[in-house]
Amino acid sequence: MTAPLYYEDLSIGQTFGTGTVTVEPEMIKTFSAEFDPQPFHMDVDAARGSLFGGLVASGWHTAALSMRLLVEGKLQIVGGLIGMGAEEVRWPRPVHPGDRLRVESEVLGLRLSKSHPDRGLVRVKNTTLNQNREPVMIAIVTMIVPRRPS
Amino acid sequence: MTAPLYYEDLSIGQTFGTGTVTVEPEMIKTFSAEFDPQPFHMDVDAARGSLFGGLVASGWHTAALSMRLLVEGKLQIVGGLIGMGAEEVRWPRPVHPGDRLRVESEVLGLRLSKSHPDRGLVRVKNTTLNQNREPVMIAIVTMIVPRRPS
Repeated sequence: MTAPLYYEDLSIGQTFGTGTVTVEPEMIKTFSAEFDPQPFHMDVDAARGSLFGGLVASGWHTAALSMRLLVEGKLQIVGGLIGMGAEEVRWPRPVHPGDRLRVESEVLGLRLSKSHPDRGLVRVKNTTLNQNREPVMIAIVTMIVPRRPS
Repeated sequence: MTAPLYYEDLSIGQTFGTGTVTVEPEMIKTFSAEFDPQPFHMDVDAARGSLFGGLVASGWHTAALSMRLLVEGKLQIVGGLIGMGAEEVRWPRPVHPGDRLRVESEVLGLRLSKSHPDRGLVRVKNTTLNQNREPVMIAIVTMIVPRRPS
C-alpha cells in the first residue's frame, strides 16, 4: 500500500490497475431487482427474447462494480475518489453472468481548479474489461484531487 | 398505463416524468458498503471531515436510483429502456439523507441507426432533481429504440 496521491503526484499517461470481480448470476438479479427491474436483467428465459438474447447486467451495475474495484485499486487519492462527473460513459458490450471484470485507469489530463486553489481536476479514462480483455464500460471522468499543502 | 413507444412516437422536446424516491440513510450506507465504501458515503462522523462535510450518497447510487425511477416512469419504450451510453454525466450537488428524488426526461434528438435499420437512436436528457427542484444528476444518454414494424 503506497501513500494516497496528491494532484502533484499525478501526470498524464500514468496508468493504474485494480483487482477483479466475478459477476455471479445472483448479483445481476439482486441489483436489477432493486435498481433496474427489466426482463433482460432479471430472468434468463425472458432475456432470451430481448435485444441482448440472454441475461446481462445493468450498465449501472457494471458502473457500481467498477467503482468498487477502483476504491480498492491502485489509484488512491488523498481524501478519496470523488468524481464531478463524466464526459463520456459507454457500454460497448454487455456483461454476462460469469464475466470477470477489472478496471484500467489512465490519466488523460490535469488542471488546477479556478474556484478552489487547494484542488486540481484530473481527467481519468476508466476502462472496465472482461476476462477476454474486451471493454464493457468506458468512462472518462473528472476527479477532484487535493493539492499538496505547501 | 399507455402503450410503450416506438421510435416513430418520439419527437424532440417531449418530456416525461417519474415518481419519487426518498433516500433513507440506511439505503446510502447499504449501497456504499457494497459498491463505494468510502467514509463520506458510510459514516456520519467520518463524513464530517470530508470534502462534503456530511454523509452523501454515492453518485452511482443516485444513477441507480434514477434508473429505477425511469423504469417505472412515464417514458416507456418497446423492448425496454436500453442505453448505449451517455455523452455527459454530472453530479452538480450531492444527495443527502432524506432527499426526495425524481427524474425529468427530455428528448433532445432522434436519428436512425445505420447498422440496424429496425432501430433508432434517441438522445434523452435525464435530470434527477431533489425536493427543492435542484438538479443532483444530469445525464445525456443515447437509447436504442425499435422502429414501428411497417
